[in-house]
Amino acid sequence: MSLGSAREVGVAPPLPVAVAPTAPEVLVRAIEDGGGRYEPDPARARALQWLGKDAPALRRLLAGSPGIEWVQLGGAGVDTWAAEGVFADDRTWTCAKGAYSEPVAEHALALTLALLRSLPTRVRATSWGEQLARTLYDSHVVIVGGSGGIGRELIRLLVAFRARVTVVRRTPAGEGEHRFEDLPAVLPGADVVVVACALTPQTRNLIDEAALRAMPPHAVLVNVARGPVVDTDALVRALDSGTIAGAGLDVTEPEPLPPGHPLWGRSDCLITPHSADTPEMIRPLLAGRLRENVARKVRGDPLVGVVDADSGY
Amino acid sequence: MSLGSAREVGVAPPLPVAVAPTAPEVLVRAIEDGGGRYEPDPARARALQWLGKDAPALRRLLAGSPGIEWVQLGGAGVDTWAAEGVFADDRTWTCAKGAYSEPVAEHALALTLALLRSLPTRVRATSWGEQLARTLYDSHVVIVGGSGGIGRELIRLLVAFRARVTVVRRTPAGEGEHRFEDLPAVLPGADVVVVACALTPQTRNLIDEAALRAMPPHAVLVNVARGPVVDTDALVRALDSGTIAGAGLDVTEPEPLPPGHPLWGRSDCLITPHSADTPEMIRPLLAGRLRENVARKVRGDPLVGVVDADSGY
Repeated sequence: MSLGSAREVGVAPPLPVAVAPTAPEVLVRAIEDGGGRYEPDPARARALQWLGKDAPALRRLLAGSPGIEWVQLGGAGVDTWAAEGVFADDRTWTCAKGAYSEPVAEHALALTLALLRSLPTRVRATSWGEQLARTLYDSHVVIVGGSGGIGRELIRLLVAFRARVTVVRRTPAGEGEHRFEDLPAVLPGADVVVVACALTPQTRNLIDEAALRAMPPHAVLVNVARGPVVDTDALVRALDSGTIAGAGLDVTEPEPLPPGHPLWGRSDCLITPHSADTPEMIRPLLAGRLRENVARKVRGDPLVGVVDADSGY
Repeated sequence: MSLGSAREVGVAPPLPVAVAPTAPEVLVRAIEDGGGRYEPDPARARALQWLGKDAPALRRLLAGSPGIEWVQLGGAGVDTWAAEGVFADDRTWTCAKGAYSEPVAEHALALTLALLRSLPTRVRATSWGEQLARTLYDSHVVIVGGSGGIGRELIRLLVAFRARVTVVRRTPAGEGEHRFEDLPAVLPGADVVVVACALTPQTRNLIDEAALRAMPPHAVLVNVARGPVVDTDALVRALDSGTIAGAGLDVTEPEPLPPGHPLWGRSDCLITPHSADTPEMIRPLLAGRLRENVARKVRGDPLVGVVDADSGY
C-alpha cells in the first residue's frame, strides 16, 4: 500500500521513532516490527529509544526535539537518571525494567550455587580437596525486592529446588511477603539472601552492619541489584569476622571495584563485573521490549515499564 | 504388643537388618521406620545395609552370614563392585541409584552455569573485567545417560531455562532420545554436554577425541558421572587447542587427580573433588531409600534400585 492510499483511507502515518546516540539495526527493525517507522532525525520524531548514559546529552537532544512524547531508556534500573533529575521533563518515560530478568536471575542462581558449592575454593585448588558443599534443595531464600522482574524470575527458578522463598519489598501485598523494615526478623532464618531491588533512598545501605549481623553464620549474600544497597565496608567486616559465610556480587560500591580492594582475591567472595546481563544478552531483549512498546503506542495501549518518578524505579 | 502376642496372632517377626561396617543411628532408625528390626549381628540378619568400600571385607561378612538374602549398597554407581565380581554372589543386590539425583543434578547445573558465566576467570581476577558471559536460556543441552535419575532430575531443573534437551542413552525409548552410537551426529548441535551415565564397558572413554572434536568450539563439557567416561588426555588436548570452550569435572581419571596434572589451575577447567553429593547430603537420602526398601521387603513388594549385573548398573 502506498502512503497516498493510506492517507486516502484514513490510516494514520506510522509513529516516527528515533534511536540515539547510535541506531543498531536490531532496534530499527524492532520499531518497524512494532508498526512504527524509524526516524533518523530526533527533531522529527514522536518517540525516542535512548541508548546513552550521558544525561546532559539526552537533555540537549530533548531540548531540540519538542515532538518527542515518549522516551524509552535502555537500562532496567533508573537510579542514575533519577539522580540527574531527568524525569522532571514532562514526557512519558519508560525503562527496560523486567526485560532483562531472565539473565539476571540466572546469574543470581549461578552465584548462589557457586558459593554453596565452594567453587571459589575449587578454582584456586591445585590438588584434590575435601567434599565441602551445601545444597539449595529445601533451603530458605530471602529475596530483597522479590516482587520485581528479577525476583519473580528467580522464584520461578528456585521452585525446582523446593526452596522456601521469603519476599521482602517496599509494599507487601501477598502472604509471606514482608516489608524492608521486617528484615531484622526475617534474616535470621535465611540460608541465602539475594538483593534484587531497585536502588532508591530507602534501599541505599539497606544491607548494613545490623542486617549482616542478623544473618546466620552459614548464610550467603548475593547482590545482582545495585552496589550501594549493600554497605561495602560492613560486608568486608562481616566476611572477616565470619558473621556470614560468603558473598557473590555482580555490583559493587564503588563500581568498578578498584584493584587492591579487600573484597578481591578471597574464597568467601565471588565478584563478577556487572556481567549478569551482557550487551549480547540485552540486545534482543531490549529489541523485544521496544517492539512491544511501539506496538502499544500505535494502538494507544498503556506502555510497559513506565518509570514511577516518585518511587524511583 | 509383645513378641508373644505377635506370634499368637500370626504376625511375622520384624525383618532383621544389619548395617556394617558401622551402623549410623539415622540408618538404624530408617530400618525401624520401615517396619524392620536392626540386627547388630550380620550372621543373624536377613538383609544387610553395607556402607564399606572394601569388597573382600564384604565377601567375608557374607560368607559368614548365609541368612542375608538382600544387600543394599550405599553408593549410586556400582562399577567398582561389578569389577570386583561381587554380584556373582546369588543374593538380591540393590544400590542407591536415583537416591542422590537431586544434589548431583544441582552440582551439574552449578558447574554448567559457572562455566557459561566465566566464574573461574572471575575468581582469579583482582580487578574489574570484561562483561563475558553466556546464558543457559534457550540453549541446547545434551545429556549422556539422560534417562537415569541424575539426567531426569537435571531435565527438571533445565525446563525453567527453556533449554532444549537431547538425551543420549544405551536404549532409546522416547522421541528425541538417541543411542550412544548417535553421539557424532548429536554433539555438533550442543551448547552444553553433561555426562551422567553409569560407567560400563560401553561408556568407558565414550567422550573420546572424536566426540570432543564433534562438539562446537563454544560448547562446555560437564562430568558428574565417573571419570573414565571421558578420555582425560583427549580432554587436555581439546582444551589446549580450543576444540571446546571448557570443562567442569566432579570426577576424574585418575581420581583423585594428582597435583601437577595439566587440568589444574586453568580458567577453562573447573574441578570439584567428587563433592556433588557430600556425606552430609547423602545420609538422609540413603536413610530414605533404606526405609523405603525395608518397607517393600516387609510387604513383599519389588525393591527399588535393584542392580542389573549384566548391564552393570
